[in-house]
Amino acid sequence: MKSEGMRVGVVGVGYWGSRHVRVLRSTTGIAAVIGVDPRFSQIDDGSPQIDHGIAAYADIEDALPHVDAVIIATPPASHALLGQKAIAAGKHVLIEKPLATTTEAAQDLVDAAESVGVVLMPGHTFEHNAAVHKLRDLVQGGELGRPFYLDCARLNLGLYQTDVNVILDLAPHDISISNFVLGSRPATVTAWGSRYVHPQHEDVAYLRLDYADLGVRTNIHVSWLDPHKVRRITAVGSKKMVVYNDMADGERIRVYDKSAVPPGEGDGPLSAFAYHLGDTVSPFIAFPEPLAVQDQRFVDCITNGSRPSVDGSSGLAVVQVLECAQISLREQRPVALAEVTQRRYRLSAHAAEVR
Amino acid sequence: MKSEGMRVGVVGVGYWGSRHVRVLRSTTGIAAVIGVDPRFSQIDDGSPQIDHGIAAYADIEDALPHVDAVIIATPPASHALLGQKAIAAGKHVLIEKPLATTTEAAQDLVDAAESVGVVLMPGHTFEHNAAVHKLRDLVQGGELGRPFYLDCARLNLGLYQTDVNVILDLAPHDISISNFVLGSRPATVTAWGSRYVHPQHEDVAYLRLDYADLGVRTNIHVSWLDPHKVRRITAVGSKKMVVYNDMADGERIRVYDKSAVPPGEGDGPLSAFAYHLGDTVSPFIAFPEPLAVQDQRFVDCITNGSRPSVDGSSGLAVVQVLECAQISLREQRPVALAEVTQRRYRLSAHAAEVR
Amino acid sequence: MKSEGMRVGVVGVGYWGSRHVRVLRSTTGIAAVIGVDPRFSQIDDGSPQIDHGIAAYADIEDALPHVDAVIIATPPASHALLGQKAIAAGKHVLIEKPLATTTEAAQDLVDAAESVGVVLMPGHTFEHNAAVHKLRDLVQGGELGRPFYLDCARLNLGLYQTDVNVILDLAPHDISISNFVLGSRPATVTAWGSRYVHPQHEDVAYLRLDYADLGVRTNIHVSWLDPHKVRRITAVGSKKMVVYNDMADGERIRVYDKSAVPPGEGDGPLSAFAYHLGDTVSPFIAFPEPLAVQDQRFVDCITNGSRPSVDGSSGLAVVQVLECAQISLREQRPVALAEVTQRRYRLSAHAAEVR
Amino acid sequence: MKSEGMRVGVVGVGYWGSRHVRVLRSTTGIAAVIGVDPRFSQIDDGSPQIDHGIAAYADIEDALPHVDAVIIATPPASHALLGQKAIAAGKHVLIEKPLATTTEAAQDLVDAAESVGVVLMPGHTFEHNAAVHKLRDLVQGGELGRPFYLDCARLNLGLYQTDVNVILDLAPHDISISNFVLGSRPATVTAWGSRYVHPQHEDVAYLRLDYADLGVRTNIHVSWLDPHKVRRITAVGSKKMVVYNDMADGERIRVYDKSAVPPGEGDGPLSAFAYHLGDTVSPFIAFPEPLAVQDQRFVDCITNGSRPSVDGSSGLAVVQVLECAQISLREQRPVALAEVTQRRYRLSAHAAEVR
Repeated sequence: MKSEGMRVGVVGVGYWGSRHVRVLRSTTGIAAVIGVDPRFSQIDDGSPQIDHGIAAYADIEDALPHVDAVIIATPPASHALLGQKAIAAGKHVLIEKPLATTTEAAQDLVDAAESVGVVLMPGHTFEHNAAVHKLRDLVQGGELGRPFYLDCARLNLGLYQTDVNVILDLAPHDISISNFVLGSRPATVTAWGSRYVHPQHEDVAYLRLDYADLGVRTNIHVSWLDPHKVRRITAVGSKKMVVYNDMADGERIRVYDKSAVPPGEGDGPLSAFAYHLGDTVSPFIAFPEPLAVQDQRFVDCITNGSRPSVDGSSGLAVVQVLECAQISLREQRPVALAEVTQRRYRLSAHAAEVR
Repeated sequence: MKSEGMRVGVVGVGYWGSRHVRVLRSTTGIAAVIGVDPRFSQIDDGSPQIDHGIAAYADIEDALPHVDAVIIATPPASHALLGQKAIAAGKHVLIEKPLATTTEAAQDLVDAAESVGVVLMPGHTFEHNAAVHKLRDLVQGGELGRPFYLDCARLNLGLYQTDVNVILDLAPHDISISNFVLGSRPATVTAWGSRYVHPQHEDVAYLRLDYADLGVRTNIHVSWLDPHKVRRITAVGSKKMVVYNDMADGERIRVYDKSAVPPGEGDGPLSAFAYHLGDTVSPFIAFPEPLAVQDQRFVDCITNGSRPSVDGSSGLAVVQVLECAQISLREQRPVALAEVTQRRYRLSAHAAEVR
Repeated sequence: MKSEGMRVGVVGVGYWGSRHVRVLRSTTGIAAVIGVDPRFSQIDDGSPQIDHGIAAYADIEDALPHVDAVIIATPPASHALLGQKAIAAGKHVLIEKPLATTTEAAQDLVDAAESVGVVLMPGHTFEHNAAVHKLRDLVQGGELGRPFYLDCARLNLGLYQTDVNVILDLAPHDISISNFVLGSRPATVTAWGSRYVHPQHEDVAYLRLDYADLGVRTNIHVSWLDPHKVRRITAVGSKKMVVYNDMADGERIRVYDKSAVPPGEGDGPLSAFAYHLGDTVSPFIAFPEPLAVQDQRFVDCITNGSRPSVDGSSGLAVVQVLECAQISLREQRPVALAEVTQRRYRLSAHAAEVR
Repeated sequence: MKSEGMRVGVVGVGYWGSRHVRVLRSTTGIAAVIGVDPRFSQIDDGSPQIDHGIAAYADIEDALPHVDAVIIATPPASHALLGQKAIAAGKHVLIEKPLATTTEAAQDLVDAAESVGVVLMPGHTFEHNAAVHKLRDLVQGGELGRPFYLDCARLNLGLYQTDVNVILDLAPHDISISNFVLGSRPATVTAWGSRYVHPQHEDVAYLRLDYADLGVRTNIHVSWLDPHKVRRITAVGSKKMVVYNDMADGERIRVYDKSAVPPGEGDGPLSAFAYHLGDTVSPFIAFPEPLAVQDQRFVDCITNGSRPSVDGSSGLAVVQVLECAQISLREQRPVALAEVTQRRYRLSAHAAEVR
């Protein structure tokens, strides 16, 4: 370990937390990586050498005095409480997606980090992913023409979570990508969900996000119960179409110079739809590991005192969509984002009146 | 042409009608194939030799006296009227999907054919498709275990229709397959649709069919505006999963011996989900052209005086789902099949009362 | 049939001949298509209406007076004799690949056509294929850099031929493509072959063609006994690589901007190999049916009195390579083209001396 | 590190050696892993803590006293010398493929290990690969019927080696698999090779191995200069065909119930070839990391004093084929294995006579 630099605690050293530990080892500006997990039996001197070769604590309270920042990679239900503890201790925090399970709790985290003056980042790895950046450039740079829709599929057999449904588990990826690629937030959310194998939680779901300002819709299909592993986003515009296939190692992004031309437009016929067909291009994309890029940016923002481009408000926006989706599941109707974002202000106003 | 056998008229000799003409040439029990299309300039003697090498008429009225049966392959809006004309003339009819554009009109066709005593078949080619039969056998024979869901995707760039939306154009295939494979009819239908390139009609849509009696749901994604040609149906059960990929020539059906096992069930652990993983099998399937099989069965039923296994009621059931989907699009809510199936009876009852 | 234009006979109306009959029906400049096949029972007047809707003869001798040109689509062993008969009768001829089974016989056909003044074309459909033209442009236009090699695979289970080995059956395609794409003829041919299922003929073979003038090598793998249907040509140069996959409907050609850079060259390091990695492009290619293009060119050359771009010498060059391959199979050694091309002149010289 | 167990040195801690270090950490029966690489600057006490977290030496001579066994993962040219040093010191050795660059040197290693009584294993990871075991079971268990041929392709762009050609670099994998799956050794080897980018060594090559005892042939295509990464072995028999695709994560092995039936055999017709077409099956295969399995077996054999199933003679057999291939490249002819295997005995005999 280097003597200079930051000490970062990883809270929750399971499947995903271990990956943070691994990438932090190669992150510039890190002096020490500390593990925090109840599985670690803490010893007197507080720093037992453990399997991952890092100092470790069983409890976050014991660890906080020894770190400058924490990465929280525990199950979703515990994110808000652990995040608040860290912020209260003046520590910078990166919290795995979703930031919290309710808009209320996510907003509180954003407010707390703001007031204490620490960095708060959500673990939206895809917003640090070179292929997603390419997708955003294609959409926002106008190469697709006017954007029409995104269609996202994130399917596999497993890994079933016990504490949340498949929407909270998998859709944060697609919601954060959609918001990022479109540079906007949806106005309305509708959701369909089904419980097949899971007794308490939906294991297959479809979401529809309506970006009213852009006239764009994003459909999301998430599933723990599909024979194929699929991680694909299709973006269609008036001029071109793009597919981002995260399973296609060397060709994650494919740009199709294809479009439908309405009657009378372009070079097409006056009375019928025409189709434009051109080349298909897979641009070469240098692809550093997104988790490593994200964790490096977290450390850099702390070091430089700069605000992360993917910040608490991005994390909050995702949680808002998730909450709308949960309401839509229950009430079988489209739910406006305003319903959850304004509640706080209604509650605040109400509290003020009462006082 | 053979001197013995049936004379069959094909009404509408465009892209799809031409295919009927082609397969009828090899159908057993056919004496003559007659084309009916306004593009044919009719000559005095009524039987000009035309490009397809068949006798042809410009108008169905002129053709009906010369045929025993007709296949109607015109645009959807004209199906009901042309079908009624043929039935009124005592001719057997096969009508391309959808049978009609409203439940009312479809029911009238079924009633008329019943009362006149002619064969009425909808052009549900997929119900005569060997891969779909295999899928049905796997689902109904119990090999999948308890069925959970079907997920259907029928996507491509084009072919935009000018008179109907993508649901009426493409979803009849998936609805007829779903009803056939599950051996049931949905109780509720929900639909999401969007108009991107088409000024009047939805070009991308998602449907959800709820088979309440079975606890099974079918999701359908249809699109005229997608970079990939996709024709895929995934069926998932408690024991196995199947994918029917109509684009995979030699391996249309793949059976995955894969499942998720809830905590405490089977050999899985008591506290976590487990996954069963076994062999994947692509059964060999002899695959005669479904359109040829269908047209042969139509001729055989007429010849033998038997009722077709895929009959008017199958066609009606598809139209009912389509109508529910259209209502759901407009009103953004789940629509019960009973809303459209009972209307007739309500109307009938109302008429009776008035009298 | 049109009253003006050419009468073309198709000799051998089996699997492949039927395809010629079909495309000739849409070929411009054709007055009549006549079938010639022993399966046709000839009737007195010589023009029975048959299944394909064409006039037909059982014997080429009877047919020749009624045609202006013939397409010979019989088994390879009969090509030379039937071709000579047609040429002797002053008819233009298109002969399916291979032109003949020996260099001697192929050279005689070329000489005869030259002396009589009729068009002689080999049935090298791939030289009329838009994807192969694109491949040639990429190679000869320098986009690949210095060409290194072609690797061809033409595999499937079946269709076993009874009279020739897999080299004579399938390799003519790849040899003609290789000669066409490189714009040259190989100097040396080596072949490996095996007889597994076929009792008399090789059913799996590998060929190596050495284009000494270019420093390019073409490897060809042909097989009747493979689980996958493969029709793929890979062309690799010093700057880029191309794959022509005839099974990939919408993306037959893919251009990979990839290369290996030897130590010290380009921007690479001084002591190690480097790799250049750029975009991958599938250029849009309008793809008319190659057989239709070929047959139209045949008719056009006859009509205009012009020499076909793919002529008898192309057909002869393929036969020379085939003969070298057969010798290499027997003698297990590389065989120079000169060994078969110079024999004729040696024989001629010998004959001259004797005189 | 555990206090009980074996101390294993890894000689050459580059790309591949690092992988040994990683798997040895989870290998049962290991007390310590020691790195040996000139890149390690050795310190006085001989055990600097280095980047991989292991004790390290710059020179094998210094390391030998501190280890019980070594794994040699240096460039091929150094294998024999380093192996001999370790054996002379009484250490067990696992040597990466190829065991040596000449038959002579490989035979000497086998003889030395035999005489000293240490374990000698070649690093043939594929012989410890569950998919290869399945392939062997299918071939040797008779499920394919009479085996006809193997066809192997191991292609990619890179990684060019500077000291050996592509045959010595990549073909050892396929040769060892072929010998293992067929349970035999080839009688004759033929090779074609080309130098395109590499100035001194072949970068694309084709091999043919003739297993005369079985009537089976294995073709191997190895390349550093191909646009696609391919690792595929096709095995074809008289009844079934198998493809082992190492790039297909979940379906490495696919068994095709397909075959060609010669005229008059089986249920086929008397005068033509027929084709049997049945199901395609991808058997589920538990797939532990082959390198970990291999290294565990190495440790177990040492611990138990048992002979490894993949032993020095397997390594020697691969080197013999490699040497034949090199001769065939130079002399452009098939080379019998006997030419290289008998040389030693001829030399020995000659030496005896001289004495």
